[in-house]
Amino acid sequence: MTGQNDKAISVTMKQAMESASWIRQMFEEGNRLRREVGPENVFDFTLGNPSVPPPPEFQRALEETARNSTPADHRYMTNAGREDTRRAIAERLRSCHGEALQGQHVVMSCGAAGGLNVLMKSVLDRDDEVMLLKPFFPEYLFYVANHGGKVVTVATDADFQPDLDAIAAALNERTRIVLINTPNNPSGAVYDCARVAALGKLIEAHAEKLGRPVYLVMDEPYRRIRYCDEPHPSVIRLCRYGIVVTSFSKELGLAGERIGYVVVNPEMPGSDSLLAALSVATRILGFVNAPAFMQRVLGLCGDASVDIGEYRRHRDLLYGALTGQGYRMPEPRGAFFMFPEAPGGDDLAFCRLLREYNVLVVPGRGFGSPGHVRISYAVPTRTIERAIPLFAEAFARARTE
Amino acid sequence: MTGQNDKAISVTMKQAMESASWIRQMFEEGNRLRREVGPENVFDFTLGNPSVPPPPEFQRALEETARNSTPADHRYMTNAGREDTRRAIAERLRSCHGEALQGQHVVMSCGAAGGLNVLMKSVLDRDDEVMLLKPFFPEYLFYVANHGGKVVTVATDADFQPDLDAIAAALNERTRIVLINTPNNPSGAVYDCARVAALGKLIEAHAEKLGRPVYLVMDEPYRRIRYCDEPHPSVIRLCRYGIVVTSFSKELGLAGERIGYVVVNPEMPGSDSLLAALSVATRILGFVNAPAFMQRVLGLCGDASVDIGEYRRHRDLLYGALTGQGYRMPEPRGAFFMFPEAPGGDDLAFCRLLREYNVLVVPGRGFGSPGHVRISYAVPTRTIERAIPLFAEAFARARTE
Repeated sequence: MTGQNDKAISVTMKQAMESASWIRQMFEEGNRLRREVGPENVFDFTLGNPSVPPPPEFQRALEETARNSTPADHRYMTNAGREDTRRAIAERLRSCHGEALQGQHVVMSCGAAGGLNVLMKSVLDRDDEVMLLKPFFPEYLFYVANHGGKVVTVATDADFQPDLDAIAAALNERTRIVLINTPNNPSGAVYDCARVAALGKLIEAHAEKLGRPVYLVMDEPYRRIRYCDEPHPSVIRLCRYGIVVTSFSKELGLAGERIGYVVVNPEMPGSDSLLAALSVATRILGFVNAPAFMQRVLGLCGDASVDIGEYRRHRDLLYGALTGQGYRMPEPRGAFFMFPEAPGGDDLAFCRLLREYNVLVVPGRGFGSPGHVRISYAVPTRTIERAIPLFAEAFARARTE
Repeated sequence: MTGQNDKAISVTMKQAMESASWIRQMFEEGNRLRREVGPENVFDFTLGNPSVPPPPEFQRALEETARNSTPADHRYMTNAGREDTRRAIAERLRSCHGEALQGQHVVMSCGAAGGLNVLMKSVLDRDDEVMLLKPFFPEYLFYVANHGGKVVTVATDADFQPDLDAIAAALNERTRIVLINTPNNPSGAVYDCARVAALGKLIEAHAEKLGRPVYLVMDEPYRRIRYCDEPHPSVIRLCRYGIVVTSFSKELGLAGERIGYVVVNPEMPGSDSLLAALSVATRILGFVNAPAFMQRVLGLCGDASVDIGEYRRHRDLLYGALTGQGYRMPEPRGAFFMFPEAPGGDDLAFCRLLREYNVLVVPGRGFGSPGHVRISYAVPTRTIERAIPLFAEAFARARTE
């Protein structure tokens, strides 16, 4: 048989793979370059893989959990997760998200990616809309499509802060979720609390008008990675329909362990129904429950978090250097990304130009914002130091060519 | 606002929860009974939760993995999983699935549930058909629906073996997957190798006719839990389009750890394309990768498996007693379930009758086979011993009432 490769997978999957292919191309390009010129000569700023180690509390909890394992600890459990872990997380989160939080408002998930899929499965009917603020994490597009939803994108202002007028204009009778992410991947913006508070009120009013919930969903894996005095805005405190979906990938450096959680506002009308749905969705999407062993480890980690000093030094070093060279961007205040304008204006062309210097960054068009590039500084310090003059050369050439 | 509970979740989710509610009702009924009469007086045969502990090799591997963890071990990885783990699993499986198997043919998954969803996402377009043999594991219905597929069910013969004529009659131009499960949940049947071999040929011929792959997918979490001399039939050896989806939940007693894998026949036309799709589907469904820590543990477990002696003793004890009392069923030869006819013919009525004796079993209609009940013997021996006279009383009453 010929053409079997074409017929081995579904048409929808083929489309998904094509739209996913830019990031994969970058990744493969990086691997090819590393083979060609040696890994020490490739300056790869494309990955959002935490470079700072988990805190020592985590390693202690890991070993203790392994030593104290009993057969029952590895069995099936309630789909929403271990009660002791959910209780421990609720206690830990009260200072951020309010005193009403109990274990029953927390559903353990396979990372934020798993949590977002579980939430969308629970609340989206076909063609229900999910609003994203540009620039956004591109995987959101797949998650919405998985559950038959439609993406609506809205621009942010020049500082990558939510634009309330633009959001208000885009709300309509199909809006089901407004999904925000601060500290933001890819922009490094930390949303102003006052802005998020106003957004919460706007969404409550819209839900009131529609006579049904409209959810303000915050994806906050970088909550603990901030370099400014602005507090983290809690959508649980700021919106009756607030939901948090997050993971320990960045705050504990555990991206490969796939552990996170969903928090539903205890005051939300219909919260019981939603929590029950999240639990069933966890089961029927095939997650079944968040990995049992890592749930137990987290229960022992207290309020530990990675040391963000290195990320802060990288941010200062690279932001100072690039803006000194003429790159334009608002100051990144959180996460480990910056999102400057591409000199010359064409993000794809500028990525290609940087590649001539073995410097790899991601074009902004993948994040809904062409004309920018994303630079991750979760890399070795030496990589940044050596790449700085290369960024300068590329900048000069982009402006003259 | 009134009616918010009704509007908090999607219509499709509400339907899913209603169809999932029978099993949840059983579960809640069990909890209610335990509170009322004390847990020691409830005879709960409803759960498929492995009761035998993981083998000692697992505990050693767990502690060693925890001690030897480095920060890099917890980071993002290739979506298909750790190369060392995939290689170790491929080596371990060669005696069962053939010498051509390499690590690249194995994609690590979040249990078999995760693996099945990843596979269906990769190959199903809307209304593509997935054939199930009755009785079947009811969660399959959700997995197919998640990805827009349609379920077609086909009866098995009196011994719960695949009926080739019935399958041949049901194959058509929309058939994409024939999903089988041996040792079988709920029937305890171990499919005859000759029957599966003939099924493999039938599917190859149908794929040839359609000019595209039709997949013979084997869900085999109970592969190592067999009480007969019949070897386990490998769909990788027996069908060009054979795919294995399975987990360590039962063979290592790790149901809560969500770790399993998908194996694609190395000789399959289009296998490269399918393997790439499985990897991308793992990512975009939100699994991202199977839990990193448990992947490392499994790499150290060698060929270890739970001791099935206790399951075999339970099978012998309960099968002997029930058939002696007049219950009718083929001898269960694997897994830890039996699936007798409900005396009186009505599975629901018989479940209610057993409940009067605080004995809980699951009605067959949930598995596509009304008129039967599923009994799990992954329970304490004492539970079986004390329930045997109760099964006898219920049998007598069901025949006379």
